[in-house]
Amino acid sequence: MKIQITSSHCTKPETYYANLARRINSDLEKAVSIDFPESLYEPMSYVLSAYGKRFRPILLIMACESVGGTQRSAYNAALAIEILHNFTLVHDDIMDNDDLRRGKETVHKKWNSNIAILAGDGLIALAYRYLLKTHSRQLKQIIKIFSEAIIKICEGQSVDKDMESVPSVSMDEYLDMIERKTGILVSISAEIGGIIGSGASSAVEALRKYGLELGIAFQIQDDLFDIISEEAILGKDIGSDLCNGKKTYPIILFMQRATARDKKRLLTAFSACRGDAAIVHTVCDMMNAYGIISDVKHDVDRRVQTANSFLFNHPDGISLNGLLYLSEMIRTRTH
Amino acid sequence: MKIQITSSHCTKPETYYANLARRINSDLEKAVSIDFPESLYEPMSYVLSAYGKRFRPILLIMACESVGGTQRSAYNAALAIEILHNFTLVHDDIMDNDDLRRGKETVHKKWNSNIAILAGDGLIALAYRYLLKTHSRQLKQIIKIFSEAIIKICEGQSVDKDMESVPSVSMDEYLDMIERKTGILVSISAEIGGIIGSGASSAVEALRKYGLELGIAFQIQDDLFDIISEEAILGKDIGSDLCNGKKTYPIILFMQRATARDKKRLLTAFSACRGDAAIVHTVCDMMNAYGIISDVKHDVDRRVQTANSFLFNHPDGISLNGLLYLSEMIRTRTH
Repeated sequence: MKIQITSSHCTKPETYYANLARRINSDLEKAVSIDFPESLYEPMSYVLSAYGKRFRPILLIMACESVGGTQRSAYNAALAIEILHNFTLVHDDIMDNDDLRRGKETVHKKWNSNIAILAGDGLIALAYRYLLKTHSRQLKQIIKIFSEAIIKICEGQSVDKDMESVPSVSMDEYLDMIERKTGILVSISAEIGGIIGSGASSAVEALRKYGLELGIAFQIQDDLFDIISEEAILGKDIGSDLCNGKKTYPIILFMQRATARDKKRLLTAFSACRGDAAIVHTVCDMMNAYGIISDVKHDVDRRVQTANSFLFNHPDGISLNGLLYLSEMIRTRTH
Repeated sequence: MKIQITSSHCTKPETYYANLARRINSDLEKAVSIDFPESLYEPMSYVLSAYGKRFRPILLIMACESVGGTQRSAYNAALAIEILHNFTLVHDDIMDNDDLRRGKETVHKKWNSNIAILAGDGLIALAYRYLLKTHSRQLKQIIKIFSEAIIKICEGQSVDKDMESVPSVSMDEYLDMIERKTGILVSISAEIGGIIGSGASSAVEALRKYGLELGIAFQIQDDLFDIISEEAILGKDIGSDLCNGKKTYPIILFMQRATARDKKRLLTAFSACRGDAAIVHTVCDMMNAYGIISDVKHDVDRRVQTANSFLFNHPDGISLNGLLYLSEMIRTRTH
């Protein structure tokens, strides 16, 4: 029996992932002590205590390990990435007026918008606090990548909101938007991991591209889950995108393919939608009738393959076990 | 005739200040090009194009020069501080529902709250972009101070909002709040300037304390201007604090001194206030009757003296011309 040992750990990737997610969840719960003023720290702590997949920080750590670095060296930056991600969730939820996140009430719903604005702002600074704990000769470069990503994320969210009030969005415009809104943060997770692990610049570049493609695939899945997933599983408002008039990946495909009559039905659903499950199901049925749901799943598969190809094609060799496990986990996720 | 030459410049401090403010205004106008998406960059540019006193960045530069550093070395960090300050204004204006800032409509009023949230977020990242351009062996320490200050500012703003809905606030509670909300940013301006100028740690500490005291004095003045200043001069809603139920420095003093009847009159003004100038004038008259306005001015004077004393008492000698000019400019400002 051949025992496969990765560069970084001897446990199975799924065990490694689960343990790491547990550790990250535990450390994020402790990242904020409920100090004075509670009106700031309680919501910050509340957000960080909502268990999540912790996909981005684990990607950062596995990317670091893939080029020979250690979990320990990447750990604080990993927490920083997850905290930054949580900032985006808190502020986006205000803007999208979403009521649920990870099965819990959103901050602006549980408290109010002002508190959510401040909790989000505080999370940005907290993210930098953790990032600054990273020991790397390239820390300045890492902070630069991190800061530039925040600007890109703001760009993406701005475009996303703009798109709610335009009649139609092309697939190119949509992909450009999700690259900024979601792709970049996944991309820099892999990139920063590579830098902390002292990867060669070509390896870091391969990781960056891998993360970008994986991040885009991830967002396309989220778009799909907004339509097909059960609210209980997703832990956020089902049909929220739809009700906000968002032109998501499946909806853009639908608009390309559907008859004038069916397009009109969808637009009616858009305007009528008040979180009405019946309307979401109607949309879902129409999507199935045009083969869109299965096509979106295939597109996600292809994008994950493309992401992996950046790693395979990298000449210097990256230890791939962890990352390929991560890719597969993303590809097959159902929520 | 004795020609006084400071360590850093031969021009009179007022000319130096005016030129520097002009340069900062000009560079901030150019800090954001109106790129895609305009919904993000137009409001960011709009905020940075509103001319301001630029007191914090000039303090940072003068603090750097006071310990022998150059304007050039401190310039990017100075822009970073001002951009960060502008982030706080944009988000605070949403929370306080203020309509005017520097004589212009606030971002959330001109556009909407979502755009203002994102513009503020973008400004935080832009501030880091500029900070990272600083050449200093202590850049990591500078970024740490900067990030920790953001958290303190969030704390201050949270406490400030909390105080709107409590019946009374003690002077100690109030001073603790404005230390976080306003004092810290002024304090780190002086501190970071000192660090960039390679000041001795004792000099940097003296600068930090100086900035903190000056910042508190500055906020107390702002509280006073909310009551006594003309809207046209202040460029923001007069009586806004009052209408938001904020317990500011003059109001806390009033509550300590006034008769039960007059306290009741003030509380009535609080609850009735709809930006009504007549009510603001009534409050102002009551304040004068208790000698509060002149006492607040004296308190500001004393605090500025205390701030200066940190510089005077510093054994290593700090070149003081610029900073003392700044102190005096603050002390005597009328808007």
